[in-house]
Formats: sequence, C-alpha cells, structure tokens
Amino acid sequence: MRELTIDLGDRSYPIYIGEGLLDQIASYFDKHGLSKKSPLFIVSDSNVAPRFLPKVQQKLEEGGYRVVTAVVPSGESSKSLAQFEQLITEALQAGLDRNSAVIALGGGVVGDLAGYVAAAYMRGIRFIQIPTTILAHDSSVGGKVAVNHPLAKNIIGAFHQPEMVFYDLATLQTLPEREVKSGLAEVVKHGLIWDTEFVDWIDAHADKLLALDAEALGYALYKGCSVKAAVVSQDERENDLRAILNLGHTIGHALEAVANYNELQHGEAISIGMVGSAILGVELGAPQEVYEVTKRVLQRCGLPVRLPEHLDTDEIMEAMMHDKKFKEGHMVYIIPTAIGKVEINKAMSAERVRAVVEQLKKEG
Amino acid sequence: MRELTIDLGDRSYPIYIGEGLLDQIASYFDKHGLSKKSPLFIVSDSNVAPRFLPKVQQKLEEGGYRVVTAVVPSGESSKSLAQFEQLITEALQAGLDRNSAVIALGGGVVGDLAGYVAAAYMRGIRFIQIPTTILAHDSSVGGKVAVNHPLAKNIIGAFHQPEMVFYDLATLQTLPEREVKSGLAEVVKHGLIWDTEFVDWIDAHADKLLALDAEALGYALYKGCSVKAAVVSQDERENDLRAILNLGHTIGHALEAVANYNELQHGEAISIGMVGSAILGVELGAPQEVYEVTKRVLQRCGLPVRLPEHLDTDEIMEAMMHDKKFKEGHMVYIIPTAIGKVEINKAMSAERVRAVVEQLKKEG
Ligand SMILES: NC(=O)c1ccc[n+]([C@@H]2O[C@H](COP(=O)([O-])OP(=O)(O)OC[C@H]3O[C@@H](n4cnc5c(N)ncnc54)[C@H](O)[C@@H]3O)[C@@H](O)[C@H]2O)c1
Ligand SMILES: NC(=O)c1ccc[n+]([C@@H]2O[C@H](COP(=O)([O-])OP(=O)(O)OC[C@H]3O[C@@H](n4cnc5c(N)ncnc54)[C@H](O)[C@@H]3O)[C@@H](O)[C@H]2O)c1
Ligand SMILES: [Zn+2]
Ligand SMILES: [Zn+2]
Repeated sequence: MRELTIDLGDRSYPIYIGEGLLDQIASYFDKHGLSKKSPLFIVSDSNVAPRFLPKVQQKLEEGGYRVVTAVVPSGESSKSLAQFEQLITEALQAGLDRNSAVIALGGGVVGDLAGYVAAAYMRGIRFIQIPTTILAHDSSVGGKVAVNHPLAKNIIGAFHQPEMVFYDLATLQTLPEREVKSGLAEVVKHGLIWDTEFVDWIDAHADKLLALDAEALGYALYKGCSVKAAVVSQDERENDLRAILNLGHTIGHALEAVANYNELQHGEAISIGMVGSAILGVELGAPQEVYEVTKRVLQRCGLPVRLPEHLDTDEIMEAMMHDKKFKEGHMVYIIPTAIGKVEINKAMSAERVRAVVEQLKKEG
Repeated sequence: MRELTIDLGDRSYPIYIGEGLLDQIASYFDKHGLSKKSPLFIVSDSNVAPRFLPKVQQKLEEGGYRVVTAVVPSGESSKSLAQFEQLITEALQAGLDRNSAVIALGGGVVGDLAGYVAAAYMRGIRFIQIPTTILAHDSSVGGKVAVNHPLAKNIIGAFHQPEMVFYDLATLQTLPEREVKSGLAEVVKHGLIWDTEFVDWIDAHADKLLALDAEALGYALYKGCSVKAAVVSQDERENDLRAILNLGHTIGHALEAVANYNELQHGEAISIGMVGSAILGVELGAPQEVYEVTKRVLQRCGLPVRLPEHLDTDEIMEAMMHDKKFKEGHMVYIIPTAIGKVEINKAMSAERVRAVVEQLKKEG
C-alpha cells in the first residue's frame, strides 16, 4: 500500500493506493471519524455500480455505517446541472445532514459531479473519492469539482477538497482499453510538466501500464498523484502555478467541445493538445526533442497525436474563446521548455494557435 | 459616510454605508482594482432595476467600465436553480471571464442568487453587494450565498465573500413599508444576540427607523453590520459561534416553508421565531424580561409576534426536520440567556418546541 498526503494546512488529506483496499474501507472510515449516525451518500455510475457498489455498501454497512446510494448514467452527459439537481433532491430525501459525507465511486465524471453535490449541499459537507479509472488519479486530487453547461465544460463548480482519496487498483482491471489509454494521458502530462525521469520511466514501462500490471500501475498513479499534490499544495486555487496542470487542455477542451463530447475521450483530446503545446514550445525555442519525446511517449501509451481532420478549425478556435483560460483577450498557454519543464505563456496569439491546429491535422 | 471592515484575513472586505454613495460608485470600483476590460455583470430584480439600475450602469460606464445586466423577477421564487442556470447562461453569453465581477443590486434574494452565481461561475469570480433593503444588511455580510430547493431553503450554496458591500441609504427610501419592518427584524436580532445597549437604542428609536430617518438608519445598519462582522470574523464557516446568527431562524424558516414562502416575509417569520426562542429561554431559566423586551421591541418595529393559527403544527415540526440545523437527531436552538446574550443549545427536544409553536399561536 502506498500513501501520500496532499498538504493543504487544515484541509490536508491522504491518498491511499493499493490492491484490494476496498475490503478494509470501513476501518479507513473509522480512522477518519466519519459519522455512523448520519447517512453516507454513495454516488456511482451505471458501469461502475454493478461491479463495485454492492461490495462497498456491504463493507460499510458491516462496519456500522448507514449507506444510501444513487446511480447516474455513465458518461460525460451526467455532469449536468439537471443531474446535480436530481442528486440534491435524493440527498434531501435521504436526510443527509451536515455530518454526512458524499462518496464518489467511479471515474472523473462521478467524482466531479458528486464532488459538486458535496460542495453545494448545505454549503459544503464532507467528500470522499474512490476513483475507479486511471484518469481519476488526476481528477480526484486537487479539489476541483464541477458540472458542465451546454456552452462550456466545468463552468459551474467549486473548490472542495476531499477528506481522503481511496484508490483500489483492483477496480482498474475491468476498465475498457480505451479508458486505460485515455487515463494514461494525464499520467504522461504529470511527467511532462514536472519530472523528466518519470517520463523516461513511462517510456520504458508503457507496455506494462497498458497491460494493467498492478506494480507498474501503482507506481505510475503514485507518481502522478505526487506531481499533482506538489502543484496543488503550492497553489490551491489556481492563482498561478496550478495553471501548469492545464498542459494540453486549452486545445484539448476545445476539441472535446467541437467533437460534441462524444467522439474524443478527455485523454485523447489532451494527448493531441499536448502535441500541439510541444510544437508551440519548439517554435518558441525549446529543443526539438520536446516534440519528439512528447509524441513518442503518447504513442507508446496508445494515444492519438493527430487532430481529426473533420473537426472545423474555426469552431475549435471559437470554442477556445469560451475557455476559462482566456483572460482579458490574451490566451494563456502552458508551453514546454524542456521535458519535465513548462512555462505559463500569457500572451499567446490566436494566429499562432490556429496554425498549430492546422498542423495537428497532419500529424501521424 | 460610515465604513467598517469584515476581518477575514486575505478575504477581508469593507462595508460602506452612506447617503448618495451610488454617485461615486466608479471611484470605489477603481479603488478596488476592478477590471475595465472584463465585463461586470449586474444582477437586479424587477422592482429594483427600474429605480436604480440605469444610474448604476451609467455611473460605471462613465467611469470606463463594461457593464452587462440581468433582471430577474422580484421575489423569493427567483432564488431557484432554474434562475441560477439562466444567469450562468447569460454570463457565458456575455463573455464573463475570471477577472469579471458579479454585482448584486437589490435585496437578499438578488444577493443570495447573484452571489451563488459568482461563487460557481468558473469556480468563483469576484462579487460585490449593493444592498437595497434593510434586511440585506444581514444577507450581504458574511459570505453565505445560496438558492432554494423545493424541499428546503438555502440548501444549495457556498461561502463566497464579497469584495465590498456598498450601501446607499438613499435606495431605501422607496422600500415598501412591509419590507422596512421585515428588515428591522434582523436589526433587532443583531441587538438581541450581542448588544443590550443597541436593543435599548432600537427600543427608543423604532419610530425614526420606521420613518426611514437617514441618520437613524445609517446608525442601525452600521451597528447591525458590526455585530454580524464580529461574529463572522470569529467563525467564517459556521463551525460554532456563527450559529448564534440563527436566533429565531429554526422556527422562522419552518414557518416560511409551511406558509409556502409567500404569506410571511422572512423578517416576519423570524420575528415570531425570536419570540419563540425567548419563551424557550425563559423556560430554561432566563429572566422574564427577556421575553418582555424581545416582544416589545419587535412590536415597536411593527413586527408580528403571533404565529398564524392556520399554519399546521405538524407541518411546521416536519419542516424543521429538513432544516440544516437539525444535526444527527438533535435540534440545535439558539436560546437567549439575557438581552444581548444567547447560547447554543444542542439538545432541544422536539416536544418542547412543539409546545412553544402552539403557544405562539396565542401570542398577541
Ligand atoms: N476535477 C478535476 O481536476 C479533473 C481533472 C481531469 C479530468 N476531470 C474530469 O474527469 C472526467 C473524465 O474522467 P474519466 O475519464 O474517469 O471518465 P468517466 O468517469 O466517464 O469514466 C470513463 C468510463 O469508464 C467507466 N468506468 C469507470 N470505472 C470503471 C471500471 N473500474 N471498470 C469499468 N468501467 C469503468 C465509466 O462508466 C465511463 O464509462 C471529465 O469530466 C473531466 O472533465 C476532472
Ligand atoms: N445570505 C445570508 O446570510 C442571508 C441572511 C438573511 C436573509 N437572507 C435571504 O435574503 C432574502 C430576503 O431578503 P430581502 O428581504 O431583502 O428580500 P428581497 O430581495 O426579495 O427584497 C424584498 C422586496 O423588496 C423589493 N425591493 C428591494 N429593494 C427595494 C427598494 N430599494 N425599493 C423598492 N423595492 C425594493 C424587492 O424587489 C422585493 O420585492 C431571503 O431569500 C433570505 O433567505 C440571506
Ligand atoms: Zn485533464
Ligand atoms: Zn435571516
């Protein structure tokens, strides 16, 4: 079992990573002093619930906890204000009170949605993440929670730190291959922004990761979470440094939107976006290997590096204008200066970005 | 002009109270470093907007600010998730970015609603309160923002401190009489929980307050805000002390709900609730004058002290079960021990409260 701490003063919390952790969930809840009188509200999705919800519920109830559950349809469309409202209604009907906790059992969708319910319900109650995807090593750490609006992703949200993150590697075994690859994109991102040795390690162990080797996965998630933890501890509310976590995301979010949030996975979109950032980096003076290594590692992880040609460049550019990172007319871009190092560029011109979008359609 | 500061470390902010302040609003915005590039989003309601919105907009535009506006229907029903969503949509369409601010121009409804928009939009942008009711001296200070759910009031919300509170006493001149009285209920509350001399002062100046005498109003709002500021500074997130601000609110909120949020004003409901608390206080050992003074001062301010008989006691008790202050089976009540002093009682029995509800139907 690996453990690390997100250091945020009186909002600090641990991340537990290990195989078979769910068997001991009740004792972890005991350790964290969760209430046995107030109901716990587990939110999961239609793919994850049949696999793991009965076990989680059973273990908690055996430990003396009161559990109520809600299952939302799987997929990004559940990260909506309508679904949020529905969960608030269920929470009220179940009698959740200020000592209750909301527990997200699932990937980033369930984490962001349930987390926003926890942030908003009675202006904030306790929140626990049980991530079941690789991508969620990213989404479950850092306290960002949100739902989408038809006009923009993650636009309605809060900062609400969890009480703990509880990662049972065993749950990852049932992940569809495409989700595995997509999740690895954020792992690669954490290497690219912070840790050149970790990038080399991924380069060498991509096969094991794709094969869901428990030891390799545990290490990769531990390292990925550690990078995120280091960044978030220094800048909880994204005043500055935290923006580096957006490597590949300005283009990536635009691609997801223009592809109607169904054609491209989040990880696939940011994989393409990270290649775009690497191109921009090299244009601005980074060594050529930044582009080469970025592209190679992503491809080793089975990720796309080419922007689908049928996605309209004008629409992509337009989508970027709605992005939170579009500040007072300047585009803010995270640009690699070396492998493991990035800088925040606050005056990226739209023309330059447009040229890169065009170029990404020819990658391969 | 009176000024006081809400002391919350790096989230501290000033409250400005004076007549004719709106004329100088642009210079205050300059002082606070608001962006002239990013749009300001003024939210008002259908009663307030025709009276004051053109002036606010004009003064800000003359000062070089970009202004977009939204007007919601007046009344508590605008504090809904549907209205919240509509405002988020308008904010997106207007291109609000991370340097934008949301400005609430109106009473507590607009303050709570617009404040929650500011809290949620991009996970939180700047927020400014321009209260135009007496009650809003309470709602605009302390950072609580929220919308209602059909099953419970203020259940969906956040803590989001404003950047400043900007109180122009001139706006209060157009307040309907019933709103004046209702607002005074929170002024009285601030005296009752904290400051016996202030209660005496209200007792002696109720007539002037009801006549909207600017000097008396300015003093009363300054004192009321000061009490709230003192409490909130010591306990921003309602872990303990801040609960005393709920004097009269457990019963009050239940009454509002059972009266379908239309028969009773918030201030009227908590006026009745405060008499209920005084009865409980005397039963638990406070001097008889606690009941007498509480009742007299509220009546001098033109407020009701009798619970309308047709409101069903069972429904009132049921509504209290949904209240945020209902914690793990115990009812939390704020109970006066003297005029200007209260204590937090965490084990109030439902039977005792029921008896007081019945008794309140016979007050007068
Ligand atoms: N809050 C943050 O900081 C942050 C960071 C990155 C991404 N995100 C968000 O995360 C979301 C994407 O997360 P995701 O990729 O985990 O998506 P997801 O939650 O939709 O999960 C992907 C798919 O895998 C299924 N699934 C999950 N666990 C499974 C398992 N163990 N076995 C089988 N199937 C399983 C899900 O049902 C879903 O169909 C996006 O909404 C994104 O905005 C948030
Ligand atoms: N956030 C908090 O800490 C807090 C505290 C107390 C109350 N509240 C909330 O405040 C709300 C009640 O506030 P309120 O009493 O100000 O209600 P309100 O905003 O509905 O205003 C009352 C009425 O007066 C009208 N009005 C406002 N200003 C006017 C003016 N200057 N001239 C003429 N008409 C005017 C409004 O249109 C409305 O019809 C409730 O929703 C309550 O939950 C919040
Ligand atoms: Zn991401
Ligand atoms: Zn109140």
